[in-house]
Amino acid sequence: MTAANQYVGLDVGGTTMKAAVVDDTGKAAPSVVMDTHPEQGQEIGLETMCQTIRRAITAAGLKPADITAIGVATPGLMDIRAGLILDPPNLKPWRNVPVRDHIRSVFQKPTAYQNDANAAAYGEFWIGAGQAAASMVMFTLGTGVGGGIIIGDTIVEGEHSHGGELGHMRIEMPDRGRLCGCGARGCLEAYASATSVVKRAREELASWRGPTAMKKYYTANDDEFTAKDVFDLAAAGDECAIKVVDDTAFYLALGACAVIATVDPEMIVFGGGMVAAGEPFRAKIEEYVRRYGLPFPTRTVKIEFAELGSDAGFIGAAGCARQLIVRG
Amino acid sequence: MTAANQYVGLDVGGTTMKAAVVDDTGKAAPSVVMDTHPEQGQEIGLETMCQTIRRAITAAGLKPADITAIGVATPGLMDIRAGLILDPPNLKPWRNVPVRDHIRSVFQKPTAYQNDANAAAYGEFWIGAGQAAASMVMFTLGTGVGGGIIIGDTIVEGEHSHGGELGHMRIEMPDRGRLCGCGARGCLEAYASATSVVKRAREELASWRGPTAMKKYYTANDDEFTAKDVFDLAAAGDECAIKVVDDTAFYLALGACAVIATVDPEMIVFGGGMVAAGEPFRAKIEEYVRRYGLPFPTRTVKIEFAELGSDAGFIGAAGCARQLIVRG
Repeated sequence: MTAANQYVGLDVGGTTMKAAVVDDTGKAAPSVVMDTHPEQGQEIGLETMCQTIRRAITAAGLKPADITAIGVATPGLMDIRAGLILDPPNLKPWRNVPVRDHIRSVFQKPTAYQNDANAAAYGEFWIGAGQAAASMVMFTLGTGVGGGIIIGDTIVEGEHSHGGELGHMRIEMPDRGRLCGCGARGCLEAYASATSVVKRAREELASWRGPTAMKKYYTANDDEFTAKDVFDLAAAGDECAIKVVDDTAFYLALGACAVIATVDPEMIVFGGGMVAAGEPFRAKIEEYVRRYGLPFPTRTVKIEFAELGSDAGFIGAAGCARQLIVRG
Repeated sequence: MTAANQYVGLDVGGTTMKAAVVDDTGKAAPSVVMDTHPEQGQEIGLETMCQTIRRAITAAGLKPADITAIGVATPGLMDIRAGLILDPPNLKPWRNVPVRDHIRSVFQKPTAYQNDANAAAYGEFWIGAGQAAASMVMFTLGTGVGGGIIIGDTIVEGEHSHGGELGHMRIEMPDRGRLCGCGARGCLEAYASATSVVKRAREELASWRGPTAMKKYYTANDDEFTAKDVFDLAAAGDECAIKVVDDTAFYLALGACAVIATVDPEMIVFGGGMVAAGEPFRAKIEEYVRRYGLPFPTRTVKIEFAELGSDAGFIGAAGCARQLIVRG
């Protein structure tokens, strides 16, 4: 009998990158984190990726020869099939970086490449919230709203690597929708990202007539007033914050209803910072999904929170590496 | 060498059912049509399906023994995996009809079962507009708006057989959207189905101040004033009709933008009655997609009209039968 396979999963973000060795059951060795420093250029970026992978192997008490395959996840724009970073807004000034081929040639291992939100969704599908589901859609709530769609162990990558760009599903008409970071109007992200939650909270506050502890944030800058504050205040019973959080659940439910009418998954998972808002927030999303979604599938679709936190990305990346081996 | 495989594709609708023998290249023998008469009950319905299949075999100059496999498509609600018609609104009073098992036991052939809109999409993907595409989404415009999603030769059936229910993607907020036949508000179908086009035309007409030939339809009942009339008048230059048709292209484009942000297909195909509106209508949809969709994928996504007309359903059903054989 051969030794169990060991995979390295690497999740590259705009600020940091994180990696760990993950085995065939999804169990992760201690993870390592390094700063990305995209401003230092893509050559240094690629070298940092290799260092992070090496450190992860060391942290697992292994040697490069013990590794079966490597998976790397990066934010878009990208060409998943070609293994290329194209021109991602949060990895400036990188452009046309041959991530997969570089990692493969340095380590001489089969190397998988995936979008970061897709990888996080795959991590949850593999060993997290969705491990018992046959199909799963995940919304990742952060500065933006990311997404990933998994159907029967296959990630919906899309023909132009834009599969699961769920933050840019439109929930409002483009003539009157909120302005999104992408330049369009009405995108889910313009309503339900952490940034958008704060923005809506400020607007709510400006016209709020009752008492609310949010008032002390009135003149705060955006670093001092975060989506977490809004969710914490709501949990403490603040009516104005409750309104903002309730609206957020409504907008996310509209996104969920749209994916029900397109891919009709067994489970929809919400991950990212807002998960800290806890069960009442999840229950509220579910309530709106059942009210506004297609009756038949919404009766039984499962609405869950993610379970892997910020490890989902590298675990999913390792899972993609495992797919290369398991599928042969 | 064995003779080429021959498949029967059967497309069951609320009014008629249509079938033909189709070979491995997608070439169809002459098709046959029979009335569905759902009101006569599901036992007679199943017998009519068998008769239609037999007549299709005869029309192809073949015998049942020459047939390799059979594919049947029906409208929802259904359980695709179980091969069951559940409770479709346009096949009343049928309920829990074991279509696949019945056909399989009568003909003793491998039998595939599929949703009718999914089958039509698969037909176009197999040998129609999408035959060169790796992934394709189709909108079928009729009394309602149906849909189908194909990714890499696999139909996205959904966990509750609701994959590709594209008419029920919401393009407007549920508090102010148009009322859809499904009971919800804001569904694409409530804007872009043939029925909805006529309804919007009547509304436009009520407030139209300039000259318009649509005025002669002002008191017409819905049988006398059809979406085709609106499209014909638009083609003839009628300003009021042009406005209605332009809005229709806009709404359909919003639906297309939503599927781009979810599955990001190589091609989006529009089929059904409105295809008769011709190239200017297609170009208008494309223009709106490029204006309102995610910039990167919409630069190259292909927007096409369907090519198989009302044969797409039985051809796609036959294609699903072929999948049973080819995939082994």
